[in-house]
Amino acid sequence: MENTPQQIVDKMLEKDYFSKWLGLNILAVKNGYCQLKFVIRADMLNGFGSVHGGVLFSAADSAFAFACNTNGNITVALDVSISFTKPAKVGEILTVEAQELHFSAKIGVYDVKIFNEQQATIAIFKGTAYKTSRLVMRESDLLRG
Amino acid sequence: MENTPQQIVDKMLEKDYFSKWLGLNILAVKNGYCQLKFVIRADMLNGFGSVHGGVLFSAADSAFAFACNTNGNITVALDVSISFTKPAKVGEILTVEAQELHFSAKIGVYDVKIFNEQQATIAIFKGTAYKTSRLVMRESDLLRG
Amino acid sequence: MENTPQQIVDKMLEKDYFSKWLGLNILAVKNGYCQLKFVIRADMLNGFGSVHGGVLFSAADSAFAFACNTNGNITVALDVSISFTKPAKVGEILTVEAQELHFSAKIGVYDVKIFNEQQATIAIFKGTAYKTSRLVMRESDLLRG
Amino acid sequence: MENTPQQIVDKMLEKDYFSKWLGLNILAVKNGYCQLKFVIRADMLNGFGSVHGGVLFSAADSAFAFACNTNGNITVALDVSISFTKPAKVGEILTVEAQELHFSAKIGVYDVKIFNEQQATIAIFKGTAYKTSRLVMRESDLLRG
Repeated sequence: MENTPQQIVDKMLEKDYFSKWLGLNILAVKNGYCQLKFVIRADMLNGFGSVHGGVLFSAADSAFAFACNTNGNITVALDVSISFTKPAKVGEILTVEAQELHFSAKIGVYDVKIFNEQQATIAIFKGTAYKTSRLVMRESDLLRG
Repeated sequence: MENTPQQIVDKMLEKDYFSKWLGLNILAVKNGYCQLKFVIRADMLNGFGSVHGGVLFSAADSAFAFACNTNGNITVALDVSISFTKPAKVGEILTVEAQELHFSAKIGVYDVKIFNEQQATIAIFKGTAYKTSRLVMRESDLLRG
Repeated sequence: MENTPQQIVDKMLEKDYFSKWLGLNILAVKNGYCQLKFVIRADMLNGFGSVHGGVLFSAADSAFAFACNTNGNITVALDVSISFTKPAKVGEILTVEAQELHFSAKIGVYDVKIFNEQQATIAIFKGTAYKTSRLVMRESDLLRG
Repeated sequence: MENTPQQIVDKMLEKDYFSKWLGLNILAVKNGYCQLKFVIRADMLNGFGSVHGGVLFSAADSAFAFACNTNGNITVALDVSISFTKPAKVGEILTVEAQELHFSAKIGVYDVKIFNEQQATIAIFKGTAYKTSRLVMRESDLLRG
């Protein structure tokens, strides 16, 4: 019996302490796709009063990981390119959307975008992932689940 | 009187709450260069028990920002490409080194690498920055400084 | 009187000897957008009998340049990230589509994709461009035009 | 008996018709490393009279391919990020240097830089490659070699 994308992401989130710190709230997950949102807090700012680029990357990277692990095997990021297009401030709610553009054999390419509440694009992320032979949910986990 | 790279980075760090959360410890800073270190904590892990890629990116992005703002003007990241080469675990001390490869007119390109305690490369980061006309330290700051 | 995107691209193509060598055939051009096609020839192959990655990049880079210069100012590539997703062979007709994702002040971000005749994605390209203050068509060109 | 890096690159070059068109002249090759040079011709220019970005990428991509196939297995580019730092004109001689930064299991990361005759950096390229299980030189080739 295969696990659903939601079960796989729930399993990943259990111990994903940094995604918890980011306050990521998953809105939708399906094969090769994840949408989530989070709120910019004061402890996410850089020295110029904008959200730190690392926080934007991190939220996009989590959405990317959730989208690319829905295939059931542990799938890891090899390379990411991110373009920062607009600053964002404390209190803004950002939406992150990750979708698979391509998957063949062991390599997938994903597009992730971050939007603010006015639907302006904050960051554009292209990630390449490598599918390992290990499963996200091992048999022992399934028995307990 | 020009500010030193160290004064500029101290000013940036004052309100860089996310770099504080990361526990970044600056080892060296000079024109176009920054070296820092930090320790991987449990709240920096992803769901597979390794350091979250966003944390690696974030530490590299801060080193990049410190290195590229030493010119005195607020300089912002446009694009970054990062390659993840090796996982890292809780308790490991990582060293991050950012150096300018090129600067002309308003555009700079920087190389940032992250190493573990065995000097193995954990991540390789290439960043492009845009120099604005605004100063990191405004006159009012200098008078107070 | 402003020039149309088509006039601007015609002007650029006049002396774009490498795009001529590539045999690029422009299908559509409008503000921030360009679609073109070309055929893979034997002199475009690498040592393994597939189209050379540089040829794919080059066709995408030309489409990117045509799309981002439609604003009328000379706009140059700063950074590009390309992912190669599928090989292509001699005789295949490839379609390249470039579109603007973001433009603010002097910086634009573009998505370019290359498709084969089965609509499979061959390469995915994300490019960042910088808008200079020089015009693609100087007054002297307009008088002659 | 293993093949030398030079034998492997000679084999690759035999049918690498696009590298021949570029006029690439290999200066040095060893494990994970390649240095080559070429001259910018008029048919390599873009519409603004500079070398086309695709030509720079292509020369770097060939150096990358030569460096990463020295391991003996066919190794293909997955992702590349390139930053263009300075234009170059017809008649200039450019030197390209590719070196391995990391290799583990099936994934390698390479740095490639292009320099002009004044040693100024023209382009900075970071490439990720995937090592397949197929050999560059098959047994039949060795018998004939």
